[in-house]
Amino acid sequence: MAVNLPPLGRLASIRGIRIGTANAGIKQTQRDDLVVMSLAAGSRVAGVFTQSSFKAAPVRVCEDHLSRAAPRAIVVNSGNANAATGSSGVDDALQCCRWVAEALDVSVETVLPFSTGVIGQRLPLSKLRDGIPRAAKAVGEAWEPAARAIMTTDTGPKALSRSIRIDGTEVSITGIAKGAGMIRPDMATMLAYIGTDAAVSQHCLDRLVKFASDSSFNRITVDGDTSTNDSFVVIATGAAGNAEVDSENHAGYASLRDGVVGVARELAQRIIRDAEGATKFVTVQVEGGRSEAECLQVAYTVGHSPLIKTAMFASDPNWGRFCMAIGRAGIQDLDPDRVALYLDDVCVAKGGMISPDYTEDAGAGVMSQAEFVVRIDLGRGTARETIWTCDFSYEYVRINAEYRT
Amino acid sequence: MAVNLPPLGRLASIRGIRIGTANAGIKQTQRDDLVVMSLAAGSRVAGVFTQSSFKAAPVRVCEDHLSRAAPRAIVVNSGNANAATGSSGVDDALQCCRWVAEALDVSVETVLPFSTGVIGQRLPLSKLRDGIPRAAKAVGEAWEPAARAIMTTDTGPKALSRSIRIDGTEVSITGIAKGAGMIRPDMATMLAYIGTDAAVSQHCLDRLVKFASDSSFNRITVDGDTSTNDSFVVIATGAAGNAEVDSENHAGYASLRDGVVGVARELAQRIIRDAEGATKFVTVQVEGGRSEAECLQVAYTVGHSPLIKTAMFASDPNWGRFCMAIGRAGIQDLDPDRVALYLDDVCVAKGGMISPDYTEDAGAGVMSQAEFVVRIDLGRGTARETIWTCDFSYEYVRINAEYRT
Repeated sequence: MAVNLPPLGRLASIRGIRIGTANAGIKQTQRDDLVVMSLAAGSRVAGVFTQSSFKAAPVRVCEDHLSRAAPRAIVVNSGNANAATGSSGVDDALQCCRWVAEALDVSVETVLPFSTGVIGQRLPLSKLRDGIPRAAKAVGEAWEPAARAIMTTDTGPKALSRSIRIDGTEVSITGIAKGAGMIRPDMATMLAYIGTDAAVSQHCLDRLVKFASDSSFNRITVDGDTSTNDSFVVIATGAAGNAEVDSENHAGYASLRDGVVGVARELAQRIIRDAEGATKFVTVQVEGGRSEAECLQVAYTVGHSPLIKTAMFASDPNWGRFCMAIGRAGIQDLDPDRVALYLDDVCVAKGGMISPDYTEDAGAGVMSQAEFVVRIDLGRGTARETIWTCDFSYEYVRINAEYRT
Repeated sequence: MAVNLPPLGRLASIRGIRIGTANAGIKQTQRDDLVVMSLAAGSRVAGVFTQSSFKAAPVRVCEDHLSRAAPRAIVVNSGNANAATGSSGVDDALQCCRWVAEALDVSVETVLPFSTGVIGQRLPLSKLRDGIPRAAKAVGEAWEPAARAIMTTDTGPKALSRSIRIDGTEVSITGIAKGAGMIRPDMATMLAYIGTDAAVSQHCLDRLVKFASDSSFNRITVDGDTSTNDSFVVIATGAAGNAEVDSENHAGYASLRDGVVGVARELAQRIIRDAEGATKFVTVQVEGGRSEAECLQVAYTVGHSPLIKTAMFASDPNWGRFCMAIGRAGIQDLDPDRVALYLDDVCVAKGGMISPDYTEDAGAGVMSQAEFVVRIDLGRGTARETIWTCDFSYEYVRINAEYRT
């Protein structure tokens, strides 16, 4: 029941990145559940990872490997998160890296491992020992199969490509992501990989991945629950041959940033469109705040409120629930008499109470759409922020009451 | 579908408090929706109120009146919260106080008004003008009808009495409360009133109401949503004739405190037992923390997580979801390898990973009970805290998608 989740368009290959997938049998389905990416020598990689205290084993290994060597390979499995698995989990993730290293003839610390799926169970190593060489042997242009292989409760794959120009050189950007529940990324998202053939310095790439996550994956929420495995990685192979983007003042930096941000934001929005049980895709804009932080605080309180999310599901413009959420967001000295609320262009409330021209029919008309904007004006400053979220349906309960059981 | 919500026992009258109810027609049902309490001269009253920025009009009037005069009357309506109603809402609440003052021959500022129900609509004043004199005229021993008249989505009334002794004098305590959704009280609960005939100084009563709320209504959550109208009031009439409890060192203070806390905690737990859609009553104990604040932070993150609440509904010991929630609770430097998780007495995980003796059957056995304890040991200190919460069911979505529409 995804909300206007677009079908995959044509995905551009990224020179310098080769991808293979395999069905390792981790998920007990006939679908591929394993991805191996081979990165050309000279590729640069930057990533942001979950801030959870229960950081999954592969995330810990990723952070360590990224600090020690230029990555040459990525391995991703779905069906098992290898999280809350203690030091054995780290050993298992390293073992997967070793098998990839052997298959691709690179060194172990150049392999970045990722896992997504059920938390708290050991990886089925024998299945990975068998599957990794098969995926490695199959490396080619498999972006679309990879987008499918990393799915868990996603109903469809999320992937897109963009093309930009840097100094007259054509540069390609292709990204894939997965995620549908346990989504309130904190510094990163579930799993997302964006590859580009742009030549870009490590410093610029580090800045870019942070900037891109803060305008995309760090602005979405399904249920407020942050995963132990959130990871977002940008790979730049340099194969396009453009003059290296080596500072934020470089003429090509803005194009590259906008290109990567565009792909990241579209992937992030598709995660919300495909959110567990979602029937509505909702943009929450908070403006008139004293700081972006307080705008985000209000936006997330609205986006996490079970009472608002169930009202969205019911297309019920129960605007008192918005007042409740704004009121409990913890904003110091907020004057309710300066707050305004809009559903798309319909002014529901201003001056802290219902607008004289407002009709329930107008509000219900907006909320019965599959997509709409909730706009809140705090009336105390010029800061603004936007997040994307979804409603809360019977289906969310069903999916999460049945998953794993 | 309340979870072991006990039937009302015998409710003790409180000398000095007389209560009447009426059907004012605010709720369009045949049930009473209006309560008037008349308090004997010399009664002392202390209250705690919602911390929402969108504090409802009656809450604002209550706080003002409490600071100006010793209360002689209380008026409560259900069906309409008189919240997010601007300055007209304050006028309306004051008008209700005036009608009560006329009917009981007391002055306006000695009347405390309370409302609960739909947010964002003006009070139907003509119905209150008609109902208030009828309720005032009927004042008697109507604790039980009052417990029913303040209900909104509650499936049953919540009320109980206790008897204690202070210096050999028998003292009665009777309390009523309402609440089932939009429950994560912040300094107070939805609506709760506890009356006692104890003689107690204003200073002690102020301390006591804060202490009692922090051990009861401030330790429960249904959905993390804090109401605009939360109010908890303790009334002490002094009619029992005990020597006034005038300091915390007074021999009777501990008895009185334990008596009031006992009633408050039982009422708070009954709110959770009757929570919207609840099928489980869950105690979340967090221990081994460095501070009580961080224990509460973990407990509430667990209590608010939609993924944990749906797993509770499914009786699914999906312990990875507990790791997720503990991990995202924002505890600085938490070492996951020292965390332990118990379901009742079953050790699910220790050292940050699954316990060797743990079986899924044992975990599912605990979680399939209507009541169980989730105990989390953070392994880094001696602080501990306890909250009470419930699961998240289809029924919660149904109730909140249908309410008001």
